[in-house]
Amino acid sequence: MKIQLENVKPADIEKRSFAIITQELGARQLPAENESVIKRVIHTTADFDYVDALRFSPDAVAKGIRALQEGACIVTDTQMAYSGVSKPALAKLGGQAFCFMADEDVAQSARERGVTRAACCMEKAAALGKDCIIAVGNAPTALVRLYELMEEGKIAPRLIIGVPVGFVNVVESKELILAQDKAPYIVARGRKGGSNVAAAICNALLYQATGRSL
Amino acid sequence: MKIQLENVKPADIEKRSFAIITQELGARQLPAENESVIKRVIHTTADFDYVDALRFSPDAVAKGIRALQEGACIVTDTQMAYSGVSKPALAKLGGQAFCFMADEDVAQSARERGVTRAACCMEKAAALGKDCIIAVGNAPTALVRLYELMEEGKIAPRLIIGVPVGFVNVVESKELILAQDKAPYIVARGRKGGSNVAAAICNALLYQATGRSL
Repeated sequence: MKIQLENVKPADIEKRSFAIITQELGARQLPAENESVIKRVIHTTADFDYVDALRFSPDAVAKGIRALQEGACIVTDTQMAYSGVSKPALAKLGGQAFCFMADEDVAQSARERGVTRAACCMEKAAALGKDCIIAVGNAPTALVRLYELMEEGKIAPRLIIGVPVGFVNVVESKELILAQDKAPYIVARGRKGGSNVAAAICNALLYQATGRSL
Repeated sequence: MKIQLENVKPADIEKRSFAIITQELGARQLPAENESVIKRVIHTTADFDYVDALRFSPDAVAKGIRALQEGACIVTDTQMAYSGVSKPALAKLGGQAFCFMADEDVAQSARERGVTRAACCMEKAAALGKDCIIAVGNAPTALVRLYELMEEGKIAPRLIIGVPVGFVNVVESKELILAQDKAPYIVARGRKGGSNVAAAICNALLYQATGRSL
């Protein structure tokens, strides 16, 4: 069997990928303000289901970009999402990324109280007292605790990226965020999502905030 | 709107998730030796397409587990996949994880030769001279270079986890691996995959190698 590779220069691979995504979307129109986020998530997952699954509160993308340009930090619920966030782009804007999942105080608090570490991470994000975007790519318990902390007035995220993945309370945790109006959100409705999706959305916002072309 | 959350203890969430996955697979029989890998990938992605997409060379799972038990290292093509690999499980077996993407010599070599950093990472893996499992979750160029290095007799991976994602040469790079018989493989045929999928497959093998229940 002869396998034919397409000859694309390293610097052009991403551009070519986005061109293929645009072509395959065909006549399907995406709202201009959400297009770069949607396409970057498809680029990351090769999954066109996200065209319908991704839900945006009004001006969520613009609000996220503005927050980053004003130096907001990004708090993720996993080390994987943390790893995936473009630190150079974030640093350019004076921002910083945090993930508290490996912190000993988080592990201890979770053990003592019988809650997940991810939920405790949200409390630590609230205690941080910084302007932040919360990106949840894994744990619905993080999203539920975040919702409670918002209800209690303990945190007011500049944007919620709510894309946990899985089977237990994942759909429900996202519906909680979709039903509230305290914070702007980008949510992947349904079961799908992931740390890679959370990082991709962060990066789509970061690239726009720093004027990168794609 | 009242959103009802299922009451599941933190320690039971994973077990409950796997039970739901098993239930939804219904009558669909998975080969016993591949079941834990397939289910963990679905757990990570909430995407049942992987039931058909994942392809295993004969005894790939058993060979991967044996390699890990013999202290093989894991080389990933992204920091995200590296982050996702269970380091405690790997350490128990005397193994180590590597990702060379952020290395200055890799960046320099890629620039000079007009190739991707991911391709250079595979050369660095070959030069490592260690027993290794290569886990590619992102860059088809890594998989293509790995194939060439195998053809040149410069590397003989104990297992290839070939799950890059995307649109440019992704399908083709996987077909290269599926068509060779020099190394055992676990490949996600088609466009889908990702760093999260690569890490999930590593962890499914690691958990079995260390006798963890799920």
